[in-house]
Amino acid sequence: MATSIYPQYPPDLTGEQKSYLLTNLIDWSIAHGLTVKPPPSFVSANQDPLGVLATPAPVTLFPSLFPQRCFDEALAIQESYNELYSAIARDEDWLKSIVEELLDIDDFVSQLWNIHLTVKKEGYAQNLALGMFRSDYMVHVDSTATKPEPEIKQVEFNTIASSFGGLSAQVTAMHRHLVAIDAYPPEISALLKTTESLGIKQSRSNTSLAAGLGAAHRAYGTSKASLPLCVIFLVQDLERNAFDQRHLEYSLLHDQGTRSFRLPFDRILTDTKLTSDRTLLYIPPHSPSTSHEVTTIYFRAGYSPSDYTTPDAWAARLHLERSAAIKCPSILTHLAGSKKVQQVLATPSSPHLSRFLTSPATRARILNTFAPIYPLDTSAAGLEARRLATDSKTAARYVLKPQREGGGNNIYRAAIPKFLGETSEERWPAYILMEMIEPPPLTNAILRNGEVQRGGVIGELGVYGVCLWRQGGGEGDKGEVLENWEAGYLLRTKGDTSEEGGVAAGFGAVDSACLVDV
Amino acid sequence: MATSIYPQYPPDLTGEQKSYLLTNLIDWSIAHGLTVKPPPSFVSANQDPLGVLATPAPVTLFPSLFPQRCFDEALAIQESYNELYSAIARDEDWLKSIVEELLDIDDFVSQLWNIHLTVKKEGYAQNLALGMFRSDYMVHVDSTATKPEPEIKQVEFNTIASSFGGLSAQVTAMHRHLVAIDAYPPEISALLKTTESLGIKQSRSNTSLAAGLGAAHRAYGTSKASLPLCVIFLVQDLERNAFDQRHLEYSLLHDQGTRSFRLPFDRILTDTKLTSDRTLLYIPPHSPSTSHEVTTIYFRAGYSPSDYTTPDAWAARLHLERSAAIKCPSILTHLAGSKKVQQVLATPSSPHLSRFLTSPATRARILNTFAPIYPLDTSAAGLEARRLATDSKTAARYVLKPQREGGGNNIYRAAIPKFLGETSEERWPAYILMEMIEPPPLTNAILRNGEVQRGGVIGELGVYGVCLWRQGGGEGDKGEVLENWEAGYLLRTKGDTSEEGGVAAGFGAVDSACLVDV
Repeated sequence: MATSIYPQYPPDLTGEQKSYLLTNLIDWSIAHGLTVKPPPSFVSANQDPLGVLATPAPVTLFPSLFPQRCFDEALAIQESYNELYSAIARDEDWLKSIVEELLDIDDFVSQLWNIHLTVKKEGYAQNLALGMFRSDYMVHVDSTATKPEPEIKQVEFNTIASSFGGLSAQVTAMHRHLVAIDAYPPEISALLKTTESLGIKQSRSNTSLAAGLGAAHRAYGTSKASLPLCVIFLVQDLERNAFDQRHLEYSLLHDQGTRSFRLPFDRILTDTKLTSDRTLLYIPPHSPSTSHEVTTIYFRAGYSPSDYTTPDAWAARLHLERSAAIKCPSILTHLAGSKKVQQVLATPSSPHLSRFLTSPATRARILNTFAPIYPLDTSAAGLEARRLATDSKTAARYVLKPQREGGGNNIYRAAIPKFLGETSEERWPAYILMEMIEPPPLTNAILRNGEVQRGGVIGELGVYGVCLWRQGGGEGDKGEVLENWEAGYLLRTKGDTSEEGGVAAGFGAVDSACLVDV
Repeated sequence: MATSIYPQYPPDLTGEQKSYLLTNLIDWSIAHGLTVKPPPSFVSANQDPLGVLATPAPVTLFPSLFPQRCFDEALAIQESYNELYSAIARDEDWLKSIVEELLDIDDFVSQLWNIHLTVKKEGYAQNLALGMFRSDYMVHVDSTATKPEPEIKQVEFNTIASSFGGLSAQVTAMHRHLVAIDAYPPEISALLKTTESLGIKQSRSNTSLAAGLGAAHRAYGTSKASLPLCVIFLVQDLERNAFDQRHLEYSLLHDQGTRSFRLPFDRILTDTKLTSDRTLLYIPPHSPSTSHEVTTIYFRAGYSPSDYTTPDAWAARLHLERSAAIKCPSILTHLAGSKKVQQVLATPSSPHLSRFLTSPATRARILNTFAPIYPLDTSAAGLEARRLATDSKTAARYVLKPQREGGGNNIYRAAIPKFLGETSEERWPAYILMEMIEPPPLTNAILRNGEVQRGGVIGELGVYGVCLWRQGGGEGDKGEVLENWEAGYLLRTKGDTSEEGGVAAGFGAVDSACLVDV
């Protein structure tokens, strides 16, 4: 049973109030590119072949309430999380032990690992790696505690293609604008107005993430091929969330002075080539005579199996990994983000955290953010998990998640025993069992594709982190972290009847955190 | 015969070049609110009842070439034009003599004049007036000259609702972005890159016009009714060009710290009231308990007869004019912008200019921008005009324009004699006859509603001006100009087969000037 902690919120609006709020929200969003390309169900490709129509990104009408100390803690520990995942990506032996358990059951992880082995054999051409992470949390209130207090629990840690960093700065600016023009009723505007520590928090994710790309670009050094340098945004075709990426691109150009190009995943082998020393060259299709040398590849594609439907796709990934460009993320960092890693770190009484973080205080803070996660293998913890998951009574407090990246296909609560019953037991280790987080009840309204829906919602706080490191050469050289900063936040809010995330997929909305002292 | 003066431009693009240019143009435009609401022919109200879809404003793919000295001259004389039209608006006797000629033939002018007389009788409650002008020019090359040189000729002078000041700063920034990312072929990018005096000129119209509203707001002084102060944007319902206005609103809030509200023209009498001392109060429908005192009314509606289809509409205009709010424009300034005024100033050997401008040098520069304009009345100049206009041979060098504001319904060249033949002669003085301006041939491509059309185009340079003055009390007190500045520019470009302007009406595109030394 979810425990209520927030004041009554948001208020009911009169028709005139709603109309004023909505008109200003829509126009501000479009005027500032807080937008997505409309889904085919709203605008068909037939109607708009050039793709010139846009619509506000799904957004909440109100900034969602969020406990101040939870927010502060999530941002405060981001640098430690950056350090942790950088250390994991630099610990090949440890990663190998984790990945090996998945090789037979997760073809995607297996393919990624094979690419690592292939490049390792040849020798890596680049010793720097860039992480642009996002650690996602929900507020959890333990209803069985004597004095229930809100705390953050990690939902997942993203090491590749963390999205919405371009839009989240816009959505907080949008909600702050609505406060500035008194679009909210007086009885709540005091709550929303920013004081030093409370009120709507502005996210700086856009410029801060662009600064991460800029730092990697500069760390690459001068051109080996005497060509102009560039960053590559590796993207999916027909990306509806393109403006999120564009805002990073524009900040990278204007604030960092760094050129970038968008490269669709299926054009890698056509539009890039490697020199004999594996310098990566980008040959712009619109201007083949002005090749650029690629310093940094920012993956906004290639993170899920659905991007690898042809043999060429894997050849393309290998081609990039062999190159001297800095990868964001490197293939080991990509693997570090697998749910299996999250699971072994969060398995009760796991010894792993102390391998990567020397400070006991830091380890304790990180541990506090873990919801218990169990493997579904045949270890002691795994057998306990199987017992919990196959009994519909105990399963009701859990969610079953595939180890792979990319969201989707989670199995919830009472549906778990039936699902496992229909799944061959040897495939069970491809899943983890996670204790459900119990967020306090909250109401909001969401504008999506021209429709407003109001109801119970669940918010997910994502904290961005930028980390640039030297990978090290093994045998005592563990590399070193060169840059490490917290890079703003995102609040994503979804209806509490849906149990999926991901705004662009149509299930949620971008939101701002209005911090309250609860 | 139009005389060619420009280098070959723009270049032909390969398919890949066009695709790169267009994708970047579309995404940049949407990400920065260089947008309009799509017309019903593109997106029906049925499909999008809340109005959440937007599309790039009609824009040119290339910045249009423009002679540098013409551009510099147009901007340099804007302050003199501000001075001129402020002086006209402050010279009631002279305006009266002009308007009286129109009273019987132009019902709209007649109604405006009656409002002035009504308010004058009661006594004006506000002695300050704000002008946000736009002087529109075309480049003219006299093909009969021995050494043809480009010069600017004024098309019209707008004293009310001058549009696109919000978007023009965006379109120049967009074209400059396209240069920065090498979206144009190398052979022309040198031409487009900004040097000190050549290349694409950034317009500052957005912030500069907002600064005009901010100056009026501050000049109004403190609240008489002890209420928060605000500016009113008086707008049309279902405004497709809303983002143009929104950008001014946002700059006014952020750069000037001034609140504003959008008031639809048909809500004036519902949402505002006058106190006993004629202070204008705005009662926001979404928050009736928080009335604001209106310092300044910025007319983006009410400029054409089509806004006055009910008796209430005229009562509403009177209501505003009676108020103590600063009007942008005042009713006399609105009248000063009638085509009749432009015509009498530009009638060959007119004595009027010296009444308003003391400096002979300034008068000469202003005079140079006039294309000869004739009345169609029974004066000597009018009789000469009738001779020119009724003969299809001589009419071929002229355009016939209605005296009223708002564009549209111009009659061109050979069509003039037939039109006059079908029009009762007593209505002829409602029109002016203007020598056609002969712009040098130019090619461009325009993106509009998801379609690209390439072909011959005509560009129209609009220069914005801000002028704040004290109206004076007559009898020797001629008032005084308090603020006067040039406020950026707009280039509007239309296909040369169409002979109408006005992008939002679907006939043109917003553009940037790429200055060339021709």
